[in-house]
Amino acid sequence: MSQPDSSVMNRIVSLCKRRGFVYPASEIYGGLNGFWDFGPLGVQLKNNLRDAWWHAMVECSPTGPDGKPVSIVGLDSCIIQHPQTWVASGHVGGFADLMVDCRETKLRYRADHVVVKEVFFVPKGKQEAVSLGILSALDGDEAPSAFAKKAKKLAQKAGGGEVLPIDLEKADNLTTISPDVRDRVIGPDAETAGTLTEPRPFNLMFHSYVGVFQDEDSKVYLRPETAQGIFLQYKNIVDTSRVRIPFGVAQVGRSFRNEVTPRNFIFRVREFEQMEMEFFCPPEDGMMWYEFWVAERMRWWESVGVKKENLFRHIIAKEDLSHYSRGTSDIEYLYPFTAPNFGELEGVAYRTDYDLTQHQKFSKTNLEYIDQEASRRYIPHVVEPASGLTRGVLVMLCEGYQYDESRASPEWLKIKPSLAPIKAGVFPLVNKDGMPEVAEKLYLDLRKNYTCQYDAKQSIGKRYARMDEAGTPFCITVDGETLKDQNVTIRNRDTAQQERVALDKVSSYIAQKLV
Amino acid sequence: MSQPDSSVMNRIVSLCKRRGFVYPASEIYGGLNGFWDFGPLGVQLKNNLRDAWWHAMVECSPTGPDGKPVSIVGLDSCIIQHPQTWVASGHVGGFADLMVDCRETKLRYRADHVVVKEVFFVPKGKQEAVSLGILSALDGDEAPSAFAKKAKKLAQKAGGGEVLPIDLEKADNLTTISPDVRDRVIGPDAETAGTLTEPRPFNLMFHSYVGVFQDEDSKVYLRPETAQGIFLQYKNIVDTSRVRIPFGVAQVGRSFRNEVTPRNFIFRVREFEQMEMEFFCPPEDGMMWYEFWVAERMRWWESVGVKKENLFRHIIAKEDLSHYSRGTSDIEYLYPFTAPNFGELEGVAYRTDYDLTQHQKFSKTNLEYIDQEASRRYIPHVVEPASGLTRGVLVMLCEGYQYDESRASPEWLKIKPSLAPIKAGVFPLVNKDGMPEVAEKLYLDLRKNYTCQYDAKQSIGKRYARMDEAGTPFCITVDGETLKDQNVTIRNRDTAQQERVALDKVSSYIAQKLV
Repeated sequence: MSQPDSSVMNRIVSLCKRRGFVYPASEIYGGLNGFWDFGPLGVQLKNNLRDAWWHAMVECSPTGPDGKPVSIVGLDSCIIQHPQTWVASGHVGGFADLMVDCRETKLRYRADHVVVKEVFFVPKGKQEAVSLGILSALDGDEAPSAFAKKAKKLAQKAGGGEVLPIDLEKADNLTTISPDVRDRVIGPDAETAGTLTEPRPFNLMFHSYVGVFQDEDSKVYLRPETAQGIFLQYKNIVDTSRVRIPFGVAQVGRSFRNEVTPRNFIFRVREFEQMEMEFFCPPEDGMMWYEFWVAERMRWWESVGVKKENLFRHIIAKEDLSHYSRGTSDIEYLYPFTAPNFGELEGVAYRTDYDLTQHQKFSKTNLEYIDQEASRRYIPHVVEPASGLTRGVLVMLCEGYQYDESRASPEWLKIKPSLAPIKAGVFPLVNKDGMPEVAEKLYLDLRKNYTCQYDAKQSIGKRYARMDEAGTPFCITVDGETLKDQNVTIRNRDTAQQERVALDKVSSYIAQKLV
Repeated sequence: MSQPDSSVMNRIVSLCKRRGFVYPASEIYGGLNGFWDFGPLGVQLKNNLRDAWWHAMVECSPTGPDGKPVSIVGLDSCIIQHPQTWVASGHVGGFADLMVDCRETKLRYRADHVVVKEVFFVPKGKQEAVSLGILSALDGDEAPSAFAKKAKKLAQKAGGGEVLPIDLEKADNLTTISPDVRDRVIGPDAETAGTLTEPRPFNLMFHSYVGVFQDEDSKVYLRPETAQGIFLQYKNIVDTSRVRIPFGVAQVGRSFRNEVTPRNFIFRVREFEQMEMEFFCPPEDGMMWYEFWVAERMRWWESVGVKKENLFRHIIAKEDLSHYSRGTSDIEYLYPFTAPNFGELEGVAYRTDYDLTQHQKFSKTNLEYIDQEASRRYIPHVVEPASGLTRGVLVMLCEGYQYDESRASPEWLKIKPSLAPIKAGVFPLVNKDGMPEVAEKLYLDLRKNYTCQYDAKQSIGKRYARMDEAGTPFCITVDGETLKDQNVTIRNRDTAQQERVALDKVSSYIAQKLV
């Protein structure tokens, strides 16, 4: 197996566009940074992953420590909620990035992306080093050359001389230096850069206005997470759904974050989908359920086809936890663009009683749970497995991407059959001699239960290749023999092996393989 | 069958809250007008309706006039798109309601909701009628009493006398009267009302800002319909999906409209879900496909359980058509709150080549379709069946709502079994003697394929009643006999009849009934 010449990630992005998995949003208008649409194959893959999660959470929930299924119900709450929601949750006050502006060019930067350094040179004919000022650059691989370039220009302006080596290992981050030093930092952009303003918070929530007036009273936010919608309806669900603690509430839906720097294809985007579940339990069981859900969620990602070695449990260090969390683990994946490091796919957080307590306080609604059997009232503790559906699709694509030059289509997708956008391709070997009629009949029968595609164009090899690229696990060919013996050829995507199966057994053959 | 005491609609809203179908959004914060959340039962019902539509459109599309399935693919585009999208579509310029403000109270009204009338009285001791001025009221059942009340007060202020009868049949709408009359209209609110301003357009699109600056350049809109996302990706889909005209692109997703007066439960809301499909065809076939899709969509609503007599095809009169449409039919439903009239559920519009032509013009991207076989290029014509998923759920609830005092639960939901939120309740007759073990085993087996609920609490009659309210078609009871003969009792929701079925045949029994 040889490696593709361009980077794996570029190839995946290109395959996604070429085969209709993912397109840039509004592409005919030049696109919109951080927004992507799912095409015909992408939406099927995404729906299948969504349904698999929903099934594993709500319809066929995992077995709990007592050997019985845990109790989880579904919810679908609005993207726009009462603005107090986000005051209580802390998002209005705290969900912000620090930004700085260049006083000359008016360009804006994320403060923690800017590194600074005082740079020196030895003027021509002198012996003593002199400061060129405190320069800055955007953090990353390009930073050393950016510093060197700017220092050289400044040295020339000052009459020429030798710039002293710039040791970036010791470069400061703009957010950590003292204000008086910061005031003298020259912006990271072109030569025309001026000094930078003090860092100011920039909230990541999109806002809008509801109703006919636009003022502070009518200001609302697009949710930055689906989780808060669950806390808002926690009381209604307890009152109307016969659930008893411990139980969970699951939700799939869109969220929005006005990311300053969207990047890495559909990994960090401004509009995305989440699959979140809040699990409510007695305070004393919080740590137990936290460990339960970390293990369960790792298991689930494996069950949808992610190799164990590509998953990593990143336990967030105590000092890095949110003030309300008693434990958080990120389930990380080995993305091509993070390798050899892992990047976030899902977070499992033990959030204690923080959210419900906040909403109780701000809404003045009693959110205590009444345990009648134990004659006890308490605010439940919460464990939250929160994963990205959009990121999940990305993982399916990265994990499934295969490159093998010996195949008709060197690039192909090894997606778990039950999640594949198309389950079966149905082909007449040639488009005559009664074969199309039999193949069409089979197709019409199969598509009642499985997403299928009928294809009679070009050679059978090209049709296999197209299906491989789409990740279709089974290709069914009606040939001359079929008319005599009522058998068809089923070709397996992963092995490229073929077997003969009776026409009337094709449906049950596929059903068996989709478990 | 006797009628409920309060109105049917109030009862449905109340059942929805009580059983967890629909909750007011952000209820603990006092709610947010025009926003509703779907609870545990509601989200299952909504998902089932969504999946039925998707299956009928994308996975198992209808048979076309040539006897072969029409070709339809799926899409999932972003809620936020490039703002030029909405300039091209006409939404920035035209998607607005006319609003008027009261000059005294600063309250704002939709102009077409305000009816006006010059009102007269005969002062005490006089014979001649004198004008009390041009009054206004909000259109609706309350309007006559609002006019009468205000006229009486004004007459008293003027020294008393007899108010002449106010004939509301002839009341004018604020949008249709001449500007000089309009300037004298007194606002519809309390006694402190002043005159009204001229009507000004108020755009129904929510807006926000993308990126770190908030100005006209970064202004974006939340989509007011999913359809435009399809037009934006039309070219990518043609280029990457091997579709050939005629074909359709289907999408399910949220849309937002900043309605001035949200009303009628989840009928007119500010955040809602749509199921839209754009069908692209040669210009000469537009009318044929328009008629095809009207018939097909009517048939589909019947197939999900809506009675024929509760559906109505409302053909929009030529003079009321949008300038670009050559034909539009609304598929209307007999909602309790519109009865005896019908209200909109889905619109099927023949939109000609309007949208693609507009986007071609604004994006300067060639959107012509190249028909290689016919050596011909053209902008395809489009037929759009656009229905509301949120409204569809409302129709399922209204259509399913039954009231029968002879039953344990007088209120129950007759929802098509395949769409029911819970397919089966599984009960041990009593919670001992080995029955729970058998029932739990059956439950664990069934839930792999069907959404089930296990219930061992209270009498079997109460458990039936709870399941009836939730619209569950089958209740399966494990009783003392089961342990001997391996049969269970299955009770049918609609007939309340019971039959004995072998334990190992329960799954196939349900499967058969869900077709």
